[in-house]
Amino acid sequence: MYRPQIKVLDCTIRDGGLINKWQFSDEIVRKVFLALSEAGVDYMEIGYKSSEKYFSRGEHGAWKFCTEDDIKRIVGDMQTTMKLSAMADIGRIDSQDIPQKKDSILDMIRVACYAKEIDKGIALAHECLDKGYEASINLMAVSKVLERDLDEALDDLSKSYVPVIYLVDSYGSLYSEQIHFLAKKYFSALPGKELGIHNHNNQQLAFANTIEGIIAGINRLDATLYGMGRGAGNCPLELLLSFLKNPKFDIRPLIQIIQDIFVPMKAEIEWGYHIPYLITGVLNEHPRSAMKIMAQRELPDLRSFYEDLKDGTQLD
Amino acid sequence: MYRPQIKVLDCTIRDGGLINKWQFSDEIVRKVFLALSEAGVDYMEIGYKSSEKYFSRGEHGAWKFCTEDDIKRIVGDMQTTMKLSAMADIGRIDSQDIPQKKDSILDMIRVACYAKEIDKGIALAHECLDKGYEASINLMAVSKVLERDLDEALDDLSKSYVPVIYLVDSYGSLYSEQIHFLAKKYFSALPGKELGIHNHNNQQLAFANTIEGIIAGINRLDATLYGMGRGAGNCPLELLLSFLKNPKFDIRPLIQIIQDIFVPMKAEIEWGYHIPYLITGVLNEHPRSAMKIMAQRELPDLRSFYEDLKDGTQLD
Repeated sequence: MYRPQIKVLDCTIRDGGLINKWQFSDEIVRKVFLALSEAGVDYMEIGYKSSEKYFSRGEHGAWKFCTEDDIKRIVGDMQTTMKLSAMADIGRIDSQDIPQKKDSILDMIRVACYAKEIDKGIALAHECLDKGYEASINLMAVSKVLERDLDEALDDLSKSYVPVIYLVDSYGSLYSEQIHFLAKKYFSALPGKELGIHNHNNQQLAFANTIEGIIAGINRLDATLYGMGRGAGNCPLELLLSFLKNPKFDIRPLIQIIQDIFVPMKAEIEWGYHIPYLITGVLNEHPRSAMKIMAQRELPDLRSFYEDLKDGTQLD
Repeated sequence: MYRPQIKVLDCTIRDGGLINKWQFSDEIVRKVFLALSEAGVDYMEIGYKSSEKYFSRGEHGAWKFCTEDDIKRIVGDMQTTMKLSAMADIGRIDSQDIPQKKDSILDMIRVACYAKEIDKGIALAHECLDKGYEASINLMAVSKVLERDLDEALDDLSKSYVPVIYLVDSYGSLYSEQIHFLAKKYFSALPGKELGIHNHNNQQLAFANTIEGIIAGINRLDATLYGMGRGAGNCPLELLLSFLKNPKFDIRPLIQIIQDIFVPMKAEIEWGYHIPYLITGVLNEHPRSAMKIMAQRELPDLRSFYEDLKDGTQLD
């Protein structure tokens, strides 16, 4: 699949940081930056933009905050055409912590929000655009949104001037036919806007559903090194770049950094396909209950975990 | 997806045995038998049917041979509607080692063969059918077969009376569009026959491509517990049964046996997604070179492994 419009964003440090509270050393972040840049990746999402009023450094690593000083320590004088992005959550960042683009190394700010808070999301994305950044809205957990509410959120987005909207399978619960259904709905509701896709791997479908997104016409693709990300993780970047025939991509630096850094890291911090994540994915639930039991020294009885969670969802 | 014609075959012991030379204890095979039966799986493929003239017991466990005595030790007097299958490779089984169906507990024999030996495959499958078994042909490594040779093999199969033909992605290298292309080709070349699908997980696409097979109209589906199988493994049975809406399926016994047996087993015998398997999958190569380096105590430089294998394929 070679489509020159396709842009790949790596969010290893941002989404992977949800597992280790962004406690990545500067050396690792620098190596990731260099490998992604060498591989031809279009954007590196280096973390969240959050205010220190809401979170403490120490408990959270630098990539929860992504101040200009943090990013400068990594990028230094290195030249690259790769752009830098950070994600912002509604209510976790104040205006004064988002400098004007002319004073920032960041190129893009992606606003993550739920359908019910879409107006706040649009306001924040508009603020970022007005300050000179590229901006997008990542509409999270769409698998849980009732169709009427989704249509309303898409209608609000269509009236905004946010140019890029992401289809996000936060729970890793969507199948290919649902990806096609939603992509068609988004395209039809959002004329003139670009679409992106961000998938989780609870059912081993993150890469497959990204391919289906591409087939459906989506051009902005999220992935992470070795699939590192919350819970079951994300679409593995090395698989995605192998699939894309765009001549600018090269998977060799990715193979190397995965072998050097992410294979050993995965032995320490578990992410990827595990039965608790399959269970929340299949039941279309937030992975938090699965993450909680995965953090225990010994797993509880998973058949009961499934039965209890299923009973719970049926009472909703 | 609820289609009553769909039949699921579990080949954990057969394909998983390719990793541990079928050294599964009788207790484990019995527990697998019971869990699959309770889960509503249609067929359990319990191993290979091979002649002891070609392989030695001791080096290989019982499930390389699947004699009537072996299977009776497991099944005993247990009643189940689940059928039993064994696979046979061309040239590794003699006629006298395949009893008449009336003298066997097995219901089905699946013949694995390459396109170039399709005539031998058909002859063996016909022999099994004539003896009273259900039989199929699993046409292996189709991703490596030139289209003209594939058309010829399909033409031979269309003239046979083998009723079930499998589309097999032995190298885990196919993408969804190729699955649709091949399924369409097989259906069109094989009127009146049933199709099956068997995928490997080198690119984390075994489950996704099984779903695409279902969408394309394929009704015979292969899977294994926790994806256990050669190299990167297979389509995980627990994911497949969660996807299928057929009311006869129940994933709870699968969750339990995976937690009790296959999670600990996977910590000992590695299968699943690993960079060497990704590399052979992406390059459409037999996984043997990847399995060889995965067996080493320390992995060699994987970037060089990729470059060398790629150079090699380009010289082909």
